[in-house]
Amino acid sequence: MKISARNQIKGTVTEVIKGATTSHVRIDIGGGQMVTASITNEAVDELGLKKGQKAVAIIKASDVMVGVD
Amino acid sequence: MKISARNQIKGTVTEVIKGATTSHVRIDIGGGQMVTASITNEAVDELGLKKGQKAVAIIKASDVMVGVD
Amino acid sequence: MKISARNQIKGTVTEVIKGATTSHVRIDIGGGQMVTASITNEAVDELGLKKGQKAVAIIKASDVMVGVD
Amino acid sequence: MKISARNQIKGTVTEVIKGATTSHVRIDIGGGQMVTASITNEAVDELGLKKGQKAVAIIKASDVMVGVD
Amino acid sequence: MKISARNQIKGTVTEVIKGATTSHVRIDIGGGQMVTASITNEAVDELGLKKGQKAVAIIKASDVMVGVD
Amino acid sequence: MKISARNQIKGTVTEVIKGATTSHVRIDIGGGQMVTASITNEAVDELGLKKGQKAVAIIKASDVMVGVD
Repeated sequence: MKISARNQIKGTVTEVIKGATTSHVRIDIGGGQMVTASITNEAVDELGLKKGQKAVAIIKASDVMVGVD
Repeated sequence: MKISARNQIKGTVTEVIKGATTSHVRIDIGGGQMVTASITNEAVDELGLKKGQKAVAIIKASDVMVGVD
Repeated sequence: MKISARNQIKGTVTEVIKGATTSHVRIDIGGGQMVTASITNEAVDELGLKKGQKAVAIIKASDVMVGVD
Repeated sequence: MKISARNQIKGTVTEVIKGATTSHVRIDIGGGQMVTASITNEAVDELGLKKGQKAVAIIKASDVMVGVD
Repeated sequence: MKISARNQIKGTVTEVIKGATTSHVRIDIGGGQMVTASITNEAVDELGLKKGQKAVAIIKASDVMVGVD
Repeated sequence: MKISARNQIKGTVTEVIKGATTSHVRIDIGGGQMVTASITNEAVDELGLKKGQKAVAIIKASDVMVGVD
């Protein structure tokens, strides 16, 4: 499936932390930068997410803010 | 200000496209990857966003999905 | 690509309204119910979205609220 | 109260799974399609959500992505 | 309708700025604080939003970040 | 850091409830109104959030809906 989300950042899963219903998945996107996704445990199981796996961080453009120093 | 958002990805603005009320800001985050932010024109003006500027793409962890091939 | 989003609702595009930077895409999901997506014009062009096309409305579980009468 | 959210999809609650702070509520929206909402336990209690109840899945248009095969 | 969103902040509309497809609605929530909502033009028309009107800013808890100085 | 988010509402933390991976932070924004943020436990620890602390509720304009009675 091809999706409309403007941001599809490639990386590698470095950690999956499961909570009661919600998991945190950390993805190394290169250049020393990481992305953390908060998704359902169910999604983690369904995609079989685990450390070392190639994955894409998908983010809708309307969910990105911009900061400047 | 220090903020709770888990994802604060550093980069450089490469393009600002203004619409009637909403702008699209493209940020080069390195490693050949880009992030697009859809923010208000007002925010673009207030932050003085323009090509070449250092900027941070800020994304709440609950707004990140994960994809696998 | 397989994605973590819990909600992937199948339907048919009934209308695409383009704005300056943002488009509204209406998808008929059956049972007399419609879903409206507000996405970038760029995404509309890239996916070639048009009336009559089969499409999936993708929504992260954390973006769904619940209402009761 | 009348709200601005473009998507107000009618259905029936089929399952409520409570976590430590976050619950997952599944709503059958007809035509064999389901919507999952991730909301606070507090909201589940306040609305008295339970299996069999009529409910509306409310989603802002800017939170809907579009996918095509 | 009663909704699950944890944040329902009461105020008065002070300004409605219409764009091509997206409007910005500013709501005075008291104590010298304002909330800006970016919603569809369609929603503005349907709710008949205009300056001086009582309105509620509705925000899901998972869309709120926290900042500290 | 200066950020693009249109809504930066000042207040005082009144409660922090930690779950397995997700915390709920309640902020009193004055005028008898409260804002609840659902953020990661990690963010709570990093910002050292606790009762009585001054804090800012940060919300992107595209995450605000409007309701009228």
